[in-house]
Amino acid sequence: MAEYIESLQRLAEKFGSLQGIGKKNAMKMAFSVLDMTDEEAADFAQAIIEAKEKIHLCPICQNITDRDICPICADEGRDRKTVCIVSDPKVVMSMEKVREYKGLYHVLHGVISPMNGITPDKLKTRELLDRINEGEIKEVIIATNPTVEGEATAMYLSRLLRAFDDVKVTRLAYGVPMGSYLEYADEITLYRALEGRRDI
Amino acid sequence: MAEYIESLQRLAEKFGSLQGIGKKNAMKMAFSVLDMTDEEAADFAQAIIEAKEKIHLCPICQNITDRDICPICADEGRDRKTVCIVSDPKVVMSMEKVREYKGLYHVLHGVISPMNGITPDKLKTRELLDRINEGEIKEVIIATNPTVEGEATAMYLSRLLRAFDDVKVTRLAYGVPMGSYLEYADEITLYRALEGRRDI
Repeated sequence: MAEYIESLQRLAEKFGSLQGIGKKNAMKMAFSVLDMTDEEAADFAQAIIEAKEKIHLCPICQNITDRDICPICADEGRDRKTVCIVSDPKVVMSMEKVREYKGLYHVLHGVISPMNGITPDKLKTRELLDRINEGEIKEVIIATNPTVEGEATAMYLSRLLRAFDDVKVTRLAYGVPMGSYLEYADEITLYRALEGRRDI
Repeated sequence: MAEYIESLQRLAEKFGSLQGIGKKNAMKMAFSVLDMTDEEAADFAQAIIEAKEKIHLCPICQNITDRDICPICADEGRDRKTVCIVSDPKVVMSMEKVREYKGLYHVLHGVISPMNGITPDKLKTRELLDRINEGEIKEVIIATNPTVEGEATAMYLSRLLRAFDDVKVTRLAYGVPMGSYLEYADEITLYRALEGRRDI
């Protein structure tokens, strides 16, 4: 029946194109939209447009934000000498939940993965080097995922940053279980990993 | 961090308001939207608006459709003497997958549930009686879910339809496991249930 209702099918396909949403769930979600009032549906559509329109990358840390400079970079109370390098904005969210880290971030937007055509120049490494060249940063904490690709990226960065004699380069401790993803780690594990960070 | 990005938070809330979507998944979906191109996001928003705009109830069977009369009611090849009563458009989808049923449908849009304020007059029973009064229908198959509320609705309908001497009222056989929902039943179970339907 759904195949007859083109607009329902089309909406289900849109939901199905989102990360982690299967066919059955996508159809359920499309039906949920039909149960909304016209106003709620219009609001929903508007939320999609607005999120795309308003959210861009912070020119300093490359994290997503809806302001000129993201609230973390703009916060005068944060330690501007320490920068934590993460692969993804979601990891910043997880780190911020720990409420222990007071430094800044740098979001790479990916990890090195030659198989998928992601070479170092596809990441925000140039922006990182520019920041370090300004001279204020004294410690860089590499917080990529403890996966093969995350480790390779950490290795690459540690070599790249050796050129800066006065910058300490550390890596999150192996409190985070190998093969997992930082964005799903619990606060305590992340806190331990942060505490036990070591030179690289 | 997400709490700083109002438009992202708002989008995640919209996704979270859909049936069966938890908080974590809603946020993942919102991030998925950020990964879309502007065009894809606009398409997605448009799909929501269009589904709401174009889809309405078929004036005959009360199923959802984007045409004047739904394709099933409009199909001359179908048996117009038999009507299958279901609670929900999703059940029509499941029944149609069996490819065995050739009659028409009537969608109640709910089941009797006094606890939730759903009394018989909130369902599409008046429209059903109007159809039966036209005199063409000879058999009504009650295919509500085999749950407490579905059974109560079946009971109510069977009593209501006793007034029509020349209309046979049947119920799906208990091929469908008790306590489950028809929309998730597999084709074979539904087929058996259809085959073994009995007088009520």
